[in-house]
Amino acid sequence: MSRIDGRGHEEMRPVEIERNYLKYPEGSCLITVGNTKVICTASVEEKVPLFLKGTNQGWITAEYAMLPRATQVRTPREVTKGKPSGRTQEIQRLIGRSLRSVVELSQIGERTIHLDCDVIQADGGTRTASITGCFVALIDALRHLIEQKVIQELPVLDYVAATSIGKVNGELLLDLCYEEDSQAEVDMNVVMTAQGKIIEIQGTAEKEPFTREELDAMLSLAEKGISNLVALQRKVLGLK
Amino acid sequence: MSRIDGRGHEEMRPVEIERNYLKYPEGSCLITVGNTKVICTASVEEKVPLFLKGTNQGWITAEYAMLPRATQVRTPREVTKGKPSGRTQEIQRLIGRSLRSVVELSQIGERTIHLDCDVIQADGGTRTASITGCFVALIDALRHLIEQKVIQELPVLDYVAATSIGKVNGELLLDLCYEEDSQAEVDMNVVMTAQGKIIEIQGTAEKEPFTREELDAMLSLAEKGISNLVALQRKVLGLK
Amino acid sequence: MSRIDGRGHEEMRPVEIERNYLKYPEGSCLITVGNTKVICTASVEEKVPLFLKGTNQGWITAEYAMLPRATQVRTPREVTKGKPSGRTQEIQRLIGRSLRSVVELSQIGERTIHLDCDVIQADGGTRTASITGCFVALIDALRHLIEQKVIQELPVLDYVAATSIGKVNGELLLDLCYEEDSQAEVDMNVVMTAQGKIIEIQGTAEKEPFTREELDAMLSLAEKGISNLVALQRKVLGLK
Amino acid sequence: MSRIDGRGHEEMRPVEIERNYLKYPEGSCLITVGNTKVICTASVEEKVPLFLKGTNQGWITAEYAMLPRATQVRTPREVTKGKPSGRTQEIQRLIGRSLRSVVELSQIGERTIHLDCDVIQADGGTRTASITGCFVALIDALRHLIEQKVIQELPVLDYVAATSIGKVNGELLLDLCYEEDSQAEVDMNVVMTAQGKIIEIQGTAEKEPFTREELDAMLSLAEKGISNLVALQRKVLGLK
Amino acid sequence: MSRIDGRGHEEMRPVEIERNYLKYPEGSCLITVGNTKVICTASVEEKVPLFLKGTNQGWITAEYAMLPRATQVRTPREVTKGKPSGRTQEIQRLIGRSLRSVVELSQIGERTIHLDCDVIQADGGTRTASITGCFVALIDALRHLIEQKVIQELPVLDYVAATSIGKVNGELLLDLCYEEDSQAEVDMNVVMTAQGKIIEIQGTAEKEPFTREELDAMLSLAEKGISNLVALQRKVLGLK
Amino acid sequence: MSRIDGRGHEEMRPVEIERNYLKYPEGSCLITVGNTKVICTASVEEKVPLFLKGTNQGWITAEYAMLPRATQVRTPREVTKGKPSGRTQEIQRLIGRSLRSVVELSQIGERTIHLDCDVIQADGGTRTASITGCFVALIDALRHLIEQKVIQELPVLDYVAATSIGKVNGELLLDLCYEEDSQAEVDMNVVMTAQGKIIEIQGTAEKEPFTREELDAMLSLAEKGISNLVALQRKVLGLK
Repeated sequence: MSRIDGRGHEEMRPVEIERNYLKYPEGSCLITVGNTKVICTASVEEKVPLFLKGTNQGWITAEYAMLPRATQVRTPREVTKGKPSGRTQEIQRLIGRSLRSVVELSQIGERTIHLDCDVIQADGGTRTASITGCFVALIDALRHLIEQKVIQELPVLDYVAATSIGKVNGELLLDLCYEEDSQAEVDMNVVMTAQGKIIEIQGTAEKEPFTREELDAMLSLAEKGISNLVALQRKVLGLK
Repeated sequence: MSRIDGRGHEEMRPVEIERNYLKYPEGSCLITVGNTKVICTASVEEKVPLFLKGTNQGWITAEYAMLPRATQVRTPREVTKGKPSGRTQEIQRLIGRSLRSVVELSQIGERTIHLDCDVIQADGGTRTASITGCFVALIDALRHLIEQKVIQELPVLDYVAATSIGKVNGELLLDLCYEEDSQAEVDMNVVMTAQGKIIEIQGTAEKEPFTREELDAMLSLAEKGISNLVALQRKVLGLK
Repeated sequence: MSRIDGRGHEEMRPVEIERNYLKYPEGSCLITVGNTKVICTASVEEKVPLFLKGTNQGWITAEYAMLPRATQVRTPREVTKGKPSGRTQEIQRLIGRSLRSVVELSQIGERTIHLDCDVIQADGGTRTASITGCFVALIDALRHLIEQKVIQELPVLDYVAATSIGKVNGELLLDLCYEEDSQAEVDMNVVMTAQGKIIEIQGTAEKEPFTREELDAMLSLAEKGISNLVALQRKVLGLK
Repeated sequence: MSRIDGRGHEEMRPVEIERNYLKYPEGSCLITVGNTKVICTASVEEKVPLFLKGTNQGWITAEYAMLPRATQVRTPREVTKGKPSGRTQEIQRLIGRSLRSVVELSQIGERTIHLDCDVIQADGGTRTASITGCFVALIDALRHLIEQKVIQELPVLDYVAATSIGKVNGELLLDLCYEEDSQAEVDMNVVMTAQGKIIEIQGTAEKEPFTREELDAMLSLAEKGISNLVALQRKVLGLK
Repeated sequence: MSRIDGRGHEEMRPVEIERNYLKYPEGSCLITVGNTKVICTASVEEKVPLFLKGTNQGWITAEYAMLPRATQVRTPREVTKGKPSGRTQEIQRLIGRSLRSVVELSQIGERTIHLDCDVIQADGGTRTASITGCFVALIDALRHLIEQKVIQELPVLDYVAATSIGKVNGELLLDLCYEEDSQAEVDMNVVMTAQGKIIEIQGTAEKEPFTREELDAMLSLAEKGISNLVALQRKVLGLK
Repeated sequence: MSRIDGRGHEEMRPVEIERNYLKYPEGSCLITVGNTKVICTASVEEKVPLFLKGTNQGWITAEYAMLPRATQVRTPREVTKGKPSGRTQEIQRLIGRSLRSVVELSQIGERTIHLDCDVIQADGGTRTASITGCFVALIDALRHLIEQKVIQELPVLDYVAATSIGKVNGELLLDLCYEEDSQAEVDMNVVMTAQGKIIEIQGTAEKEPFTREELDAMLSLAEKGISNLVALQRKVLGLK
């Protein structure tokens, strides 16, 4: 039994990453995962938040937003309500945490790298696409610092990429599109390194609790998908 | 090698639940987990959010806050900044989702049950204590609806309780106190049913990615702790 | 003709003060006045507001909030509306002013004592209970400064306590509970010292103006009640 | 020993009330008390707040603001901070309560009278001047309703006016100007009817507690001042 | 065919400017244009916004507000919504820009002149009246700086005044009152110097686009009106 | 003497409009003007603002935002400050007004068309590019209504496009890029129809007032540029 868009259960949607998508940021890309499209930028700022002043350490932080008409029905801008929603804040914190986990912040000095993820089209998986895309933008911003002779080598411990897995009508599926996601019994996002180590796991039983065996099977799917994403990051960035 | 407070690695802190802690709410308790103390209340309101109007279905929602001096250093009230922090919203969403997952919302009619978690003393694990305590307050509020002849039986599918697990100095520990939590390499919260099925899992590598084997071991610890918590809920509620 | 709860006109509700109610604050108590329960804490912070910088003088400020289900019907949290209500701000200002009036701020150096009053159960008289309880928390915080050898003696000029008086169905009553308060023709709060001097008086004709003779009679009631409260403070604090 | 501006202790500053100061409101005046000038308007709106819908009763509410340069040093607009200050809200509540206390709200039907007090010059006593001025604007708005044949007679029980009294350098003074107010040991505002009955009393010991005898003497001063204000209101309004 | 209020097409409403309208500001006036009345004040503050620190240059900024009952129907205060409306901000920016354009900011040192425009009665043309009135208040504030020997001469390059022009029922009219403005096909505001040079032009086709010839004719009207306004400013300020 | 980027004084930057840029909106395009890139979408909503309810008339409204890294230096998101800036609101109002002026709102029934302009790269002229692009998105949304048989023909009176003109170093230039704009003595935005009629004109003397002759010359430049833009709109839309 195949999926809404004809994919197999363990098949991801087509993924593309267009590096240097914008003219001004130190790093930027447009990541496309099926119909989901996110502009990711990495901006270097020569200061750190208060709690890091004087520590000789850097910081990475992320912001996330959707264009109002990224969605099938127009979503009001969050500025209209005066504050980011709980969902937005949760996603921002997740992206920041994930990328910080693979960078040696003590190597970049007292500067902040701002990651901005702006979803221009949303068909599920926007937070995981943001993480995968931000890694590329971040590497380019760090390379910019190398060119500027601010740092000498990439202070990056590992690749990081992310994908979603879910249980839909009793079947475990990799990389859910929006329609699948909205019907899922279980919804899980996993952030992993190139070696399949876990940086972040968030799994929610939307309709019924799941067993530890199901969790394990979903992690195997995630590992498969993320290994493909890392291969693409590697190729796009020209790293061996 | 024992823990800061002398516990074994797989040992929880002492837990108490004082039912009917407040006079006015339909359900309420004070849950104490070591030095962590949370007042949980369940309030029934005879209306639902807009998106449920006319569906004949109920809703459960949660709010979470800390007294300013629940913490070692005074934390400014969130009302001063005009909005709940990202952390607060994340916790509120988690608590609401967890409790909704075991209640048949179609059985309670168009009414909302508000769960309020107010931390009066915080020593780690406030969100998991809130979930465990809210289950007790919620059952009492539902019993109140039975007494009022609004519903006929408890529309509850299973118990729900939560605990934290972490990796600290390379050791896997159950039920972290604040000091352990702040040093943890990996920090995980798990929400489970009485049968050990997973409702929610959130694991974060604060310092280094973790393997799937470590995840599995942490889930075993969680299962053990949660089974104790469910036994206490059962006893306190006088359920067999 | 006796009152709703059987008290005489000049009789206060039972009052209890549990000192050191919380683990972390420099001073804290739980004050219970009938069904009204307020957690009062006093926190010392090593800085002053801008307008006092460089004056070598300290500051005392107060915040007040109610748990959502302190009341018979759930009250939405003020953080949801983004700001404290007018009523809350009025109460906060009153508490701060009352406690400042008996402390020699020049003796505590450039530090702020934050008084936090969190009402966990509300049955009338929450602002006056807060003042009475804060005095106890404040003394303990000041004693903490003495222990720390920051100051040498208690820089306190007098006791301060507060109660309400009202005219209900034409009768003058001491210490109104919520139901009496909501029917009162006149509602008055008085803050006094141990010697019966007035620190603050706020009287409002809710339904009909009152005479100067009635005002005088209400002050006599207040003086009686406050003298009892001061006796309790003295005992609880172990002061002679 | 005379006062800063040469007045006697029991002497008010010159008071003027210019009726129909603005073209559009149903009632309006400019009240001048010494250098304090407040524009008071009364606006009739054909609806009531939610809590009065269907009760056949009206409502009176007040708002208060200062022009930025009403004061000696420019005060930032409250809109800049996004909300009225605690002081502003306290004053608004006081004005609304005071005027409501003399109007039979059941006689004006389901409509709201908005009282707006905008201080264009501030030299102490702005809240009491606002109350005294609003009474005049309110009567004119009610007369407008009579002309419109909406009501048949003035639904007003009594006059209401207000003044301040204080203890400055040990002397009791009537109607404090700003400089006196800022040095006062005791600061009191009193709202009274024509017969000297008390609608509202708010007294604060800014520097030292005061005795009941001093309170009584201050009320005698207030009664004297308010009797003059009522005489002026009567004359200006052409009432006997 | 004459206008609503009997004026000719090229005739302005009667204009008056009352200098030194308030006691405290360094400069102030009440400007009356027909039924429109605006209090304009200029306040000197001894600091500049961040972006000018260390530049040895001054700044001029403007704020604008309306009393709630300046209008025929009461307008809620903007503080109630927590922020100035888009219209208010547009007007504030226009006033600030216009006055800055004729002052040599490098001559006034690192200080800010705050222009506050508070409309107490509104019958069209409030923003242009504000600009015309602010010029007078500003000159007086600058003269105050001369008296204080802070500066030696008026650092002002030219007069600045403003008026509106519109196309109403196919006719071009000078200085629209509110009723004309609300029916206008074209609505234009022009800010000019004494020599008829343009500082700001804002023209909007409310109902149908207009030709360049019409634009030219409207500018001739504006020039005529502004020349009258400058003559009045000159007279009121006692400048030759 | 040629311009920064080698253009002649009367030469626009290269303009492209990519129709149907996004999958979900009823109309959308990406407009590129030199290095300035704006995503414009038009979304149909089946309701109108309150003030149009029951009038059988439609509404068009616009929102505008910039991605944080559209600019050379990262600009903080406006949601962080809780509200759109004055500049943003001014631009939103301009875009909405401009597009409303050419649509017969009575022909589209009680529905709102939301225009969203999201600048992904900013090099001057973002507001005028937004207007030009929104016209294309709007036509496509209206065509969608025709396909849906909601309306029968395009209720559009004329084309609308916009450009900027400025005086830089004494020279009048068409279509300023960011660097020119930041040095301009005069900065003007003009919105025109295909026939060169003016819908909106906004001219500001940033450094020195300008003459009516200069204004006229700038309008001629604008007319030339806008005529090119309309030709492109016509071609892209396949209209004759």
